[in-house]
Amino acid sequence: MDYFFELRMKVRDYECDLQGIVNNAIYQHYTEHTRNEFLRSRLEGMEDLHERGIDTVVARLEMQFKAPLHPGDEFLCGLNVRKEGLKYIFDQDIVRLKDEKICVKATTTVVCLVNGRLGDYEALHALLPKE
Amino acid sequence: MDYFFELRMKVRDYECDLQGIVNNAIYQHYTEHTRNEFLRSRLEGMEDLHERGIDTVVARLEMQFKAPLHPGDEFLCGLNVRKEGLKYIFDQDIVRLKDEKICVKATTTVVCLVNGRLGDYEALHALLPKE
Amino acid sequence: MDYFFELRMKVRDYECDLQGIVNNAIYQHYTEHTRNEFLRSRLEGMEDLHERGIDTVVARLEMQFKAPLHPGDEFLCGLNVRKEGLKYIFDQDIVRLKDEKICVKATTTVVCLVNGRLGDYEALHALLPKE
Amino acid sequence: MDYFFELRMKVRDYECDLQGIVNNAIYQHYTEHTRNEFLRSRLEGMEDLHERGIDTVVARLEMQFKAPLHPGDEFLCGLNVRKEGLKYIFDQDIVRLKDEKICVKATTTVVCLVNGRLGDYEALHALLPKE
Repeated sequence: MDYFFELRMKVRDYECDLQGIVNNAIYQHYTEHTRNEFLRSRLEGMEDLHERGIDTVVARLEMQFKAPLHPGDEFLCGLNVRKEGLKYIFDQDIVRLKDEKICVKATTTVVCLVNGRLGDYEALHALLPKE
Repeated sequence: MDYFFELRMKVRDYECDLQGIVNNAIYQHYTEHTRNEFLRSRLEGMEDLHERGIDTVVARLEMQFKAPLHPGDEFLCGLNVRKEGLKYIFDQDIVRLKDEKICVKATTTVVCLVNGRLGDYEALHALLPKE
Repeated sequence: MDYFFELRMKVRDYECDLQGIVNNAIYQHYTEHTRNEFLRSRLEGMEDLHERGIDTVVARLEMQFKAPLHPGDEFLCGLNVRKEGLKYIFDQDIVRLKDEKICVKATTTVVCLVNGRLGDYEALHALLPKE
Repeated sequence: MDYFFELRMKVRDYECDLQGIVNNAIYQHYTEHTRNEFLRSRLEGMEDLHERGIDTVVARLEMQFKAPLHPGDEFLCGLNVRKEGLKYIFDQDIVRLKDEKICVKATTTVVCLVNGRLGDYEALHALLPKE
């Protein structure tokens, strides 16, 4: 699979729950962290976006849980992004490295608030793949 | 709104993030906790299900984030459940109590593994509303 | 045992880890949440302390882990507070309700920063027991 | 400073709280994760210790919070270990990389339970520095 951005991580024991596998909500953390690292890598001045009245907000999320991660597993979170109207849609996979198994597929819809209202912010176009 | 099961909670400061509102993944924790409290209230012998080879597993999740919860907010997580084939589908709302605003809507698909294979487990029928 | 303030809670499954018991760092969350609920109950205008240049900061922490909490356990977190110079020292116990067993003892030292410097803030005296 | 074992990490946004800095309990997670990575690197068959009736348990913890970590900060968690009777004592520092500032100092006392009773387990001696 080809991703526009990738981040490698390793499961920490405290992220696992009673069943001995990574807790479902932690996968949401992994996808959020990967999106933020992607934003940091692309977006100049991301740190003061909020001061300038611009906020990126998750509006919607879909996740499919296909296989679990276990303590110590290494994985990558791969990300692709596309634009639909005012929405930025992130397609992300969590892939276990030892067998390249896709453990989780997530689709996250992010919108941009400009001074509290749904809007567009030109600099975010830097997120999109060049055609 | 009418729910089949409800649980009241209050936002803890440590569940909020940089933006001063509850972190998105925490809402997934809230819905998971509510489902588990519901299961505990209905299902005799839930604690040793796993020993008897029966596991309930989240296969799929959809969440819509409509409004944020803030530090100290009281809320309820309401739950309805229906069966589609071998799937148990939980529809859950997170409702801010002070203004009855629905903050999050979540639909979670749970399946039952019997000795590791997709199956059915009669006792789970106790989860469903009586007709 | 007599406490100056108490908060009752119940273990949530997602707070437990691989060993089937509450993860050690979660007890720190419980004590923090209890201190904050205590502050909210005593301190008028706590929400805008930060805007007025006043921050309360944890400087030091000691915890003894004596017995574990399990999924679904109900417990209380009891709190006493005393002042030593500019330090507010919170002694907190986490007590399992079913057998009144003390599971965790924690001592947390909190100081007050006024405009970023160690200082005192008169309104915090409202935290202390009346003699 | 010289450490017996070191692990590098980077702050994730979701680990930060309302105050815009890493939440205090997360530092406990960082120290736990570092100890576990250290154990994994030294201890053959660590994964089935529990099945063989051997558990390592945190009995006591002391932390000093000296400076905060911010979103995106890179840091290392350095670890030294010594034995006192049946106790393994881990001294850990969390060091911000950009300015080598020690943000947190933690001392964690770990004991070994053999079939549920305080005991010793020879293989754990592999944890200690060779003299």
